[in-house]
Amino acid sequence: MSIFNVDLKKVVDDSYEIEIGYGLTNRLVEDLEGGLVGKIKKFAVVTDSNVRDLYAKPICEQLIKSGFQIDLFAFPAGEKSKTRQTKERIEDAMLEKGYRRDCAIIAVGGGVVTDLAGFVAGTFGRGVPFINYATTLLAAADASVGGKTAVDTPLATNLIGLFNQPKKVYIDIDTWKTLPKREVVSGMSETIKHACLGSLDMFEFIEEKLEDILSFQKFACEYIAESNCRIKYSVVMKDEREKGLREVLNLGHTVGRAVETVSDYRLLHGEAVGIGITAQALLSARLGYMSEEEEARVIALLSRTGLPTKLPDYIDREALVRKLYTDKKVRDGKLRFVLQKGIGGVVEFSPGVYARPIEEELAREIIMEL
Amino acid sequence: MSIFNVDLKKVVDDSYEIEIGYGLTNRLVEDLEGGLVGKIKKFAVVTDSNVRDLYAKPICEQLIKSGFQIDLFAFPAGEKSKTRQTKERIEDAMLEKGYRRDCAIIAVGGGVVTDLAGFVAGTFGRGVPFINYATTLLAAADASVGGKTAVDTPLATNLIGLFNQPKKVYIDIDTWKTLPKREVVSGMSETIKHACLGSLDMFEFIEEKLEDILSFQKFACEYIAESNCRIKYSVVMKDEREKGLREVLNLGHTVGRAVETVSDYRLLHGEAVGIGITAQALLSARLGYMSEEEEARVIALLSRTGLPTKLPDYIDREALVRKLYTDKKVRDGKLRFVLQKGIGGVVEFSPGVYARPIEEELAREIIMEL
Repeated sequence: MSIFNVDLKKVVDDSYEIEIGYGLTNRLVEDLEGGLVGKIKKFAVVTDSNVRDLYAKPICEQLIKSGFQIDLFAFPAGEKSKTRQTKERIEDAMLEKGYRRDCAIIAVGGGVVTDLAGFVAGTFGRGVPFINYATTLLAAADASVGGKTAVDTPLATNLIGLFNQPKKVYIDIDTWKTLPKREVVSGMSETIKHACLGSLDMFEFIEEKLEDILSFQKFACEYIAESNCRIKYSVVMKDEREKGLREVLNLGHTVGRAVETVSDYRLLHGEAVGIGITAQALLSARLGYMSEEEEARVIALLSRTGLPTKLPDYIDREALVRKLYTDKKVRDGKLRFVLQKGIGGVVEFSPGVYARPIEEELAREIIMEL
Repeated sequence: MSIFNVDLKKVVDDSYEIEIGYGLTNRLVEDLEGGLVGKIKKFAVVTDSNVRDLYAKPICEQLIKSGFQIDLFAFPAGEKSKTRQTKERIEDAMLEKGYRRDCAIIAVGGGVVTDLAGFVAGTFGRGVPFINYATTLLAAADASVGGKTAVDTPLATNLIGLFNQPKKVYIDIDTWKTLPKREVVSGMSETIKHACLGSLDMFEFIEEKLEDILSFQKFACEYIAESNCRIKYSVVMKDEREKGLREVLNLGHTVGRAVETVSDYRLLHGEAVGIGITAQALLSARLGYMSEEEEARVIALLSRTGLPTKLPDYIDREALVRKLYTDKKVRDGKLRFVLQKGIGGVVEFSPGVYARPIEEELAREIIMEL
């Protein structure tokens, strides 16, 4: 018997920049010419059917003009496309076009595109670099920091994927204006979530400037883009691999994710999370972590934004309760919720543990109230 | 316009132990009880139809007896199972059985099992720990060091996957005895490859002790298990992500991989690599990097081992030439080969570059000679 030691301790630097601005295609071209991903000249631009003509094609044209080798890979827009099958189709299309390991991926779109493209990049040729060009508020709020990439499966959302950091993220605020109103509103839920869990100041800013944000005023939009990055970053930095603290970012997502699935994606992710934030606020107030006034303030802000705070009638409540058990925070068969502590903080259930076990009966009661 | 810096520099320690011995199930149980993967109690044992009854089931029984929660996931044996579809089936079966992020995977089998299970582990719940229990000489030689996991696709072998280090590897030499003779011989090709590229001493040891190895004499088997780890490790350590030096491990694989695919897997991986090692030896001698005597010695050792050094008649030579272009070492549409320099070394084509561009015409000539 003998032991052979494989020593693989090393310093890894996955640092990157998020650039927030207006019309950033030129900046992307400059960065690629400046060696953002080394000498790579071959790029797969991954996008969806909504964004293709609006942003992805113009970006491709400009990159081709600058001498890069570009192919565009578009899939049907929507969360329903975030599957292993779509990933496979993109991979096969890339292989078909001769893509091997000497390429990089540019994701142009919202959260579904960046989640999927980042996952493709993570396993294509055992990992090629990728860049996110975020064209939605939701992607700006949620997908820019954290390195989470994933797809959904029939049995669970976001459970197949990996942690993969982009080389750079562009948040192009110009693009928000072309989003359908419903998408903008939906995108606000992750922003409100960040305020709820991390910053009373940000919460009050949104309360005060909500109309400015929804009408894309420069200052208000830049403020929330930056605040989203700052809050998410402060959490992710301390817990990149989601061992503890990072679970706080799951605020509103226990019920939110389940509602999204049970609605069969009739509700957008952000809309479902609006209901999920409401659910945890009710729960938090019930358990004494928030005052009733604070609870009402959270729900009022969601409502003013245009987010749902009630379950649609077509949702089967018992199916929803059962669906909660597919949540990734479930441990030993027990439901666990992240809960707000007042506004701008979260409950630390025990040292380093932020997801609190909740009895099914209590969860059911809250769901019946929704 | 503003820039937000995401600073993600950190020290990562992916070190692990390889334990080489005889009948190591008890050691596995002891290690898990000792906290090898922390407090995890739930394990998915992934195996194939050949290994299931012979080793995976007894291991499962012993783990269950020790209080662990175990499920066995077996897929049909063979390289043809190394696909995204098999990965998906294992994932779905795990999700179905309630596996979430608080689990780990134990791969019990040869290289196909460890490649596939390591990939599943890398993306299940965005990464859960995994352990390899290697039951073939090939897995011991090839899959124990390096962290490469992958699946094949219709258009390319091993191009979808990731680098993922196991928590521990067990090389159970006892298991080699139950392998069919053809598998043992096939497994020797990666061992001979390591000797060819890294150690004249090891090459001479194999020349001298070949019969001892093939009859599983303790000293000879331990020597080659350790030498394989040592040579592969010395390469991988210097280039974990295959930027340059690590390509030397691809010796014999340019033609080998292509032959394997064009044979539609009638040839085992190791058999195909035997032909691939022969091909690069011919090429190396032709280009003056090896003497004719050295070339003959390499081919003689492959032959004595029982590995093929000639292409079977049914292989379409032109299809094989075309297939070479799916090799991952291809750059800018050019074939690139790793070549032996004498015995125990490789050609460094330019500083840090070990894959040498080869004209298609020359590659074709060599293939016609095979």
